[in-house]
Amino acid sequence: MKYSVKKNAKNVLSQCGVDDKNYLDSVIKTASALLDMDDVEIISHRSPDGDTLGSAAALCRALRSLGRRANVICADQIPEKYQFMFDGLNKQEFDPKHFVSVDIAAPHLMGCLEEKYADKIEICIDHHIKNSVNAAVKFVDEASSSVGELIWILLKSMDVSVDKGMAECIFAAITTDTGCFKYSNVTLRTHIIAMELMKFGIDCAALNFKLIDEETKSKLALKSMALSTLEYYCQDKCAIITITSDMMKESGAAPEDMDGVASIPRSIRGVQCGITMKEDGNAWKISIRSDESVNAAELCAKFGGGGHARAAGCKLNGSYDDAKKSLVKAIEDIIGK
Amino acid sequence: MKYSVKKNAKNVLSQCGVDDKNYLDSVIKTASALLDMDDVEIISHRSPDGDTLGSAAALCRALRSLGRRANVICADQIPEKYQFMFDGLNKQEFDPKHFVSVDIAAPHLMGCLEEKYADKIEICIDHHIKNSVNAAVKFVDEASSSVGELIWILLKSMDVSVDKGMAECIFAAITTDTGCFKYSNVTLRTHIIAMELMKFGIDCAALNFKLIDEETKSKLALKSMALSTLEYYCQDKCAIITITSDMMKESGAAPEDMDGVASIPRSIRGVQCGITMKEDGNAWKISIRSDESVNAAELCAKFGGGGHARAAGCKLNGSYDDAKKSLVKAIEDIIGK
Repeated sequence: MKYSVKKNAKNVLSQCGVDDKNYLDSVIKTASALLDMDDVEIISHRSPDGDTLGSAAALCRALRSLGRRANVICADQIPEKYQFMFDGLNKQEFDPKHFVSVDIAAPHLMGCLEEKYADKIEICIDHHIKNSVNAAVKFVDEASSSVGELIWILLKSMDVSVDKGMAECIFAAITTDTGCFKYSNVTLRTHIIAMELMKFGIDCAALNFKLIDEETKSKLALKSMALSTLEYYCQDKCAIITITSDMMKESGAAPEDMDGVASIPRSIRGVQCGITMKEDGNAWKISIRSDESVNAAELCAKFGGGGHARAAGCKLNGSYDDAKKSLVKAIEDIIGK
Repeated sequence: MKYSVKKNAKNVLSQCGVDDKNYLDSVIKTASALLDMDDVEIISHRSPDGDTLGSAAALCRALRSLGRRANVICADQIPEKYQFMFDGLNKQEFDPKHFVSVDIAAPHLMGCLEEKYADKIEICIDHHIKNSVNAAVKFVDEASSSVGELIWILLKSMDVSVDKGMAECIFAAITTDTGCFKYSNVTLRTHIIAMELMKFGIDCAALNFKLIDEETKSKLALKSMALSTLEYYCQDKCAIITITSDMMKESGAAPEDMDGVASIPRSIRGVQCGITMKEDGNAWKISIRSDESVNAAELCAKFGGGGHARAAGCKLNGSYDDAKKSLVKAIEDIIGK
């Protein structure tokens, strides 16, 4: 068994253009550990997205195809658009003996499952830069666009006979985390795996529509309201949209509907710093997206927040006008009035 | 020379998974004809998009890299977001002797260049189902996502030493016509070529942002106005947005800014028939996008229009209210009130 895992892992890594002994060892170790398991619980992160769910569902389908019992569990409800991943994957009854986490960077991201599972994880499969999950076997590749890519490598190494259902889940994982092959996390390998997945006859266009383009009525209503608040500062190099609690209520938007909205101001040509101000009780939650002329993390740090150079956040107390004035002033200091 | 074209064409087609003698012949014929040319004018279609311009610019760069004189010409102005394709590609002075059309399905799509060039085209490279361009050599592959893919195949067959500039243009052509690998025209080959292009170190994420996500201030203003008109019919299975001439004027939107807007209503979850009504003098131009439950072409045919099953258009005279009433009535007949 081990020999064939090694051979399979070598094959898939060679096809993916990975030539790294340590990487190979890591894949062999993880795939072998998975093959040694039965009665497995696969844990997705809270506020689940397409990568954590698609990866978990694909792995669950793979283990079941090998005759093992396996379930996917998640602290939060599975959004409707990801439900298809679980078609025909009814919950199995068994006493879980083994535990695998997918796309979980830190124990608290298990949500309400943290207390029960944090100390039980045996295999951790992830692609976040800082991973603090405690597990005997860790397969963490921060250069991977998504955990979906890693699941493909593992399934091939485990000699799973990948089927259309698994391929759909892995494709969904990859397309979600790459914005449909749009972001800078896409590598040669991402396209190679996408190509392999297409061979299973999956309807990529339909999946992409469902996962990327389709919007709920309430999300579109929220977007419409948010767009009507659009303001420009710093000679149009800074744009701000505002989302009040009333808008959230009136539109019926769910918290996850905020995702696409926060990226709007920065997507305007010429805007170097895009800001979304969202009412949060008596304070304002600020999301900043920027180009290379503005360090969003440093900007947010001035207000006690943080994040990445191109995407960061902070929280401002006080009135809307005061909060906006402070922000605009700080940005003027960087890119000029 | 011919022998090496044949060998190169075989190699690139094999890599792309194409095993078809006629296809190979077509590639050899086209690549050989291109290699026989000097003083070449490459013609893009009117209202140019990323595929026609990216393909033309890549071919122009390739011919120049082989020591030939070549220019790209187009009836209309090149939109700002495609200008990068022409960096360092200044117009050369020569008497054009040979003429190549790219992504042009019919002579009238040359716009104001039709009269001068329609009878001169020697090589026609295209991917539209019905191609009526008159040319001695036609390389038309309707299964290709974009002309960009065909240019890649040709350049490799011509043994061009592809550089980063050419790779950027071809990637731009492909990403434009596939909506960044999102539509049903994406094939295995699309991902294979994308992967090859990435090897040139192009910044795909930046290109995708510029070509797909970035919006002009005026487009976003138009979108905001259009969204505020959103109405639902047929128990939310039909959604309509309206764009008046006043909105076009007030937002300062260009005609091409309509593209993304027309797809909004259909992108709403549960909407089977999305309609955009655009004021056009005393009439209303109607764009319909649908799912499989509504044949948009048949629907539009009832009003003297036509198109595809999932995307079609027509024109309605008379008042806004009357036009909308007729449309909604026709849709109710299909999907119910």
